[in-house]
Amino acid sequence: MTQPNLLSTAQLAQSLLLLRQQAPLVHCMTNDVVQTFTANVLLALHASPAMVIDAEEAAQFAGFADALLINVGTLTRDRRDAMLAAVQAAQKAGTPWTLDPVAVGALTLRTEFCQQLLGLHPAAIRGNASEILALANQATGGRGVDSLHQADAALSAAQQLARDYDTVVAVTGEVDYVTDGTQTLAIPGGSPLMTRVVGTGCALSAVVAAFTSLPGERLLHVAAACRVMSLAGEITARQVEGPGSFASAFLDALWTLEMTV
Amino acid sequence: MTQPNLLSTAQLAQSLLLLRQQAPLVHCMTNDVVQTFTANVLLALHASPAMVIDAEEAAQFAGFADALLINVGTLTRDRRDAMLAAVQAAQKAGTPWTLDPVAVGALTLRTEFCQQLLGLHPAAIRGNASEILALANQATGGRGVDSLHQADAALSAAQQLARDYDTVVAVTGEVDYVTDGTQTLAIPGGSPLMTRVVGTGCALSAVVAAFTSLPGERLLHVAAACRVMSLAGEITARQVEGPGSFASAFLDALWTLEMTV
Amino acid sequence: MTQPNLLSTAQLAQSLLLLRQQAPLVHCMTNDVVQTFTANVLLALHASPAMVIDAEEAAQFAGFADALLINVGTLTRDRRDAMLAAVQAAQKAGTPWTLDPVAVGALTLRTEFCQQLLGLHPAAIRGNASEILALANQATGGRGVDSLHQADAALSAAQQLARDYDTVVAVTGEVDYVTDGTQTLAIPGGSPLMTRVVGTGCALSAVVAAFTSLPGERLLHVAAACRVMSLAGEITARQVEGPGSFASAFLDALWTLEMTV
Repeated sequence: MTQPNLLSTAQLAQSLLLLRQQAPLVHCMTNDVVQTFTANVLLALHASPAMVIDAEEAAQFAGFADALLINVGTLTRDRRDAMLAAVQAAQKAGTPWTLDPVAVGALTLRTEFCQQLLGLHPAAIRGNASEILALANQATGGRGVDSLHQADAALSAAQQLARDYDTVVAVTGEVDYVTDGTQTLAIPGGSPLMTRVVGTGCALSAVVAAFTSLPGERLLHVAAACRVMSLAGEITARQVEGPGSFASAFLDALWTLEMTV
Repeated sequence: MTQPNLLSTAQLAQSLLLLRQQAPLVHCMTNDVVQTFTANVLLALHASPAMVIDAEEAAQFAGFADALLINVGTLTRDRRDAMLAAVQAAQKAGTPWTLDPVAVGALTLRTEFCQQLLGLHPAAIRGNASEILALANQATGGRGVDSLHQADAALSAAQQLARDYDTVVAVTGEVDYVTDGTQTLAIPGGSPLMTRVVGTGCALSAVVAAFTSLPGERLLHVAAACRVMSLAGEITARQVEGPGSFASAFLDALWTLEMTV
Repeated sequence: MTQPNLLSTAQLAQSLLLLRQQAPLVHCMTNDVVQTFTANVLLALHASPAMVIDAEEAAQFAGFADALLINVGTLTRDRRDAMLAAVQAAQKAGTPWTLDPVAVGALTLRTEFCQQLLGLHPAAIRGNASEILALANQATGGRGVDSLHQADAALSAAQQLARDYDTVVAVTGEVDYVTDGTQTLAIPGGSPLMTRVVGTGCALSAVVAAFTSLPGERLLHVAAACRVMSLAGEITARQVEGPGSFASAFLDALWTLEMTV
């Protein structure tokens, strides 16, 4: 297993510049709790969010969009069907799509659905250690999650997932790891306060989706997505005292980030 | 075609005063992304929002409410049926209803539904140039949207729509135009930062709905709705540096607007 | 009828300390408008929110969670069925569940559902005076709501409900009353600005749900939940000028509340 590398500041600046130039249209099929914050994060980065959720409309829209996000946080059977239609249309149109397997493992409907989605060529997967372990665990038919040391085990699981499904996996936590199964980057930074604002992880997945639409090396762009968010988190944490003011200052930090890279 | 006029400050003050006095109950059937911001915008203006979405309950509620908003941003088949039931109940009860045809034109389900709704006597329609062009285009069986110069074409389309359906149409952008097909008002102002905060347009439609409930000339009240939002946007843009702080300062500006008119 | 007592500062501090230590996982089945704010309020109090809404998943999750919230604000038939499945699973697992009967009385679907839910042993009920009166009215087959003086009548209705269903009822307004039908506590405080921020009442219900999971006397813990929110409201109202800045400052106040008790 290769040692994780750091992302260079030059690469970060280049990916962010490209994102702002391209201003991708990101089709978000995400959970009820984080819709507004997700849209505002994308807008602050000069991308365009669009939430289209009906099965037929979502399939139509996945063809126009530059990227698609599937987040199973508040899955229902109807939403599953609409998401599947959108993923299939995205594949057909060559639109990259990103999976956020929220709380996979514990709940049957989403676990089965995420396993099904793994076979449909996600461009990227973004989850926390438990989620990545749960995804990989079922994929390889194996071990219990709770008995493992999370950070190490999740990195190894992420690398395995990336190789098995030819995708880029971001496993996020105190340090984020981004891997294509061969190369791995470590992204430090962020702030503990980010865990006290709902939707920071889910919004990161939308940002990952936005960055998958860029030309160039996807592994580096996904790492840049993680670093953009962790950097904005660090800047914000120096300015605020609580999670309420964090949420709005974080959006301002994303908006002005080009000046600080 | 008559030249657009400006809205007088006296009329703006009168409409806003009336809104605060009447504090209308606005039944919002709107998209998933903007629910919270829409409710907070109405509350900041002393109106009362209520989101009731089940078909049967929505039909019951449309009878109690002072105004109804239909926003098709995250339409599904079930929501379409519930919205239709609410609009029919609103019509029966004499409750004015407002249409926000989000992304109409590009997506089949909502395009067909909005065309159907046009025949059900909306009190007002609020959309951006592309949406108003798409609505009018289908109504008159005609031209492609992309080849047109947006601002001019949308004004003309808005005037045609207003005449065809005996309604007030607000087409919003850098300058907003509000027309009943005979008279047209131009509403300048606002801030580019408003396009970086999700829901400002959708919330404006809810404010338009609130103002349609007022006694007096509807054209002027709808113009006042647009000006209330653009004025609060201007005030806010002078105070903040990014879209995160914009959203909360904007609500504060609406709350204190009576002192600045 | 006993006279309401005040909650002691010592009891408030003890309940809040216990909440932070236990950091309960609160399963929220709540309305579309308040999801984000509800989650952020729980996070600011060091609790963990989880919104799981599919009928099958919700029933699974109600077994893991420390508490369940049912809020009928944007009820649909599908959501009713999912909520019922979750409540039944919660009962089986011994997970306490809290009812927020938003706008009960006026609308048939939710009124019938809330009446059904009353028979399923809620640990707590949190509503405004009209809602508590409507719930009790149907339960006892009686009086019209509009003709009553709200505060007094609702207190008596709350006490009756608490006795009839062996639960704790919080009826909130300028002064909140919390009763188990025998003892009643009065919770003053808060701020009128709270009524201009959508979701403060709904989030209080989620906080009540969180506090029902704590060991010890439930009546006192529910009263502490109300006081935590009213105290944060008072602190916030001294710092801000409008409802937009209120929402974020309120979360910061909850986050730092341990220092001010």
